[in-house]
Amino acid sequence: MFVEKLRAAQQTNNSYLCIGLDPDPELMAHPHVPSFFTDIINETKDLVCAYKPNLAFFEALGTGGMQLLLEAVRAVPKHIPIIADAKRGDIGNTAKFYAKALFDVYKFDACTVNPYGGRDAVEPFAAYKERGVFVWCRSSNPGAADVQDLKLEGGKPLFEAIAERARDWNEHGNVGVVAGATWPEQIERVREICPDQVLLVPGVGAQQGELEAAVHAAMDAEAGGFLLNASRGVLYASRGDDYAAAARKEAQRLRNRINVMRQAALARG
Amino acid sequence: MFVEKLRAAQQTNNSYLCIGLDPDPELMAHPHVPSFFTDIINETKDLVCAYKPNLAFFEALGTGGMQLLLEAVRAVPKHIPIIADAKRGDIGNTAKFYAKALFDVYKFDACTVNPYGGRDAVEPFAAYKERGVFVWCRSSNPGAADVQDLKLEGGKPLFEAIAERARDWNEHGNVGVVAGATWPEQIERVREICPDQVLLVPGVGAQQGELEAAVHAAMDAEAGGFLLNASRGVLYASRGDDYAAAARKEAQRLRNRINVMRQAALARG
Repeated sequence: MFVEKLRAAQQTNNSYLCIGLDPDPELMAHPHVPSFFTDIINETKDLVCAYKPNLAFFEALGTGGMQLLLEAVRAVPKHIPIIADAKRGDIGNTAKFYAKALFDVYKFDACTVNPYGGRDAVEPFAAYKERGVFVWCRSSNPGAADVQDLKLEGGKPLFEAIAERARDWNEHGNVGVVAGATWPEQIERVREICPDQVLLVPGVGAQQGELEAAVHAAMDAEAGGFLLNASRGVLYASRGDDYAAAARKEAQRLRNRINVMRQAALARG
Repeated sequence: MFVEKLRAAQQTNNSYLCIGLDPDPELMAHPHVPSFFTDIINETKDLVCAYKPNLAFFEALGTGGMQLLLEAVRAVPKHIPIIADAKRGDIGNTAKFYAKALFDVYKFDACTVNPYGGRDAVEPFAAYKERGVFVWCRSSNPGAADVQDLKLEGGKPLFEAIAERARDWNEHGNVGVVAGATWPEQIERVREICPDQVLLVPGVGAQQGELEAAVHAAMDAEAGGFLLNASRGVLYASRGDDYAAAARKEAQRLRNRINVMRQAALARG
């Protein structure tokens, strides 16, 4: 089960930090260092509970992109889950093939999905009971409100209705929710609606989400049930030769800040 | 400009039919015939206005999937546009990389996108002014209503608000809308909201959308401005050795039925 694997990694590494793997050639100090991700992973693998490669960045590398991704994540220890950030969503028959690609072919532990197609767009992913599925509910971008805050009859914003669906779709206990760190109030609403589901919280660092507020909003009753993702802020902490050491330092800093928050919450009881 | 290329292909081939390229190994008579798509394309290239490969099916073939797709579409004549059915959608910085993959790396003429992330999730695609972008508005699947029919304050369903946004996002004249053939009343609403945009209408054939009702609803004031997609119904018209000839026959039948509808509409004036 994905959730159990995630929890075990969180305990082993005492970490709720997920590092996003997004190869942006313009930001990398060494776009041609083939070991860039291996180096980053080797320096941070005792500090994280998951890695989250973003498929867009690998697809932009051309036909060899997915092969590169597979090679990059080979350095991830078996006990650390890998979440494919793919935001796939399509009608059921197509979603079945996206799920097949991500889970059967590439063997990812979990993936992100887009809820716009409704239940039958998400079911083919959730049908893989051993894998995790994160429903994109509240995104971290400035334009998130354009669509996700549209008010429904009765006054509820759309993203809350999506959170309710993500809760209903969680028949096998493997469905989580994505809620961006840039919108802590909205994370809080998602947590209220989905008290027992895992929240994946991106947007800290380059996107300027405020870590403390996001963690506070995302924690469940046991100060767990979430993972906080940082990508650019860690990967490109230094654009010099010391990129791996700088990534480690930043990952350490983030992990510790999250843990301080968790300990305070546990102390409050 | 994509729209001009599409219109020219529609005139040259007297066709509003798009054929979807979805390799489903279970349905293919010859899963190992490497020329399957080349054969289909060669037999239908004078009958269509576009081809629409669905990326899910190629991704499910593994790391070589996109290479296979590129080889498959090499048979498409230069004047026929190719629409990548990818339904990509993510925050702006990620969307930029998805757009780069589809437009710079793979050189598709157009793609489908998912609107859930709002304006900045769609803009990086629409910024390629020479390419086309189809916003997934009303999907053809049974569960479409789960999310897309959610009633907004004032009584309007969500998909209509998305159609309004697709109209607003059409600053460069290259944004169209996807509206499934299985829901003709909803196509009609989308056409009212977007009188001048191209509607991509999937769902005829395997998905049982009714062609006449869909075409009637999708046509603009000049009985054009749309393309009707069929995938499985054409590709797998025969599961025997005669698959290419059977695909041609089915494509011909669909093209003619669409044209009869168009002519009747033009005669009515």
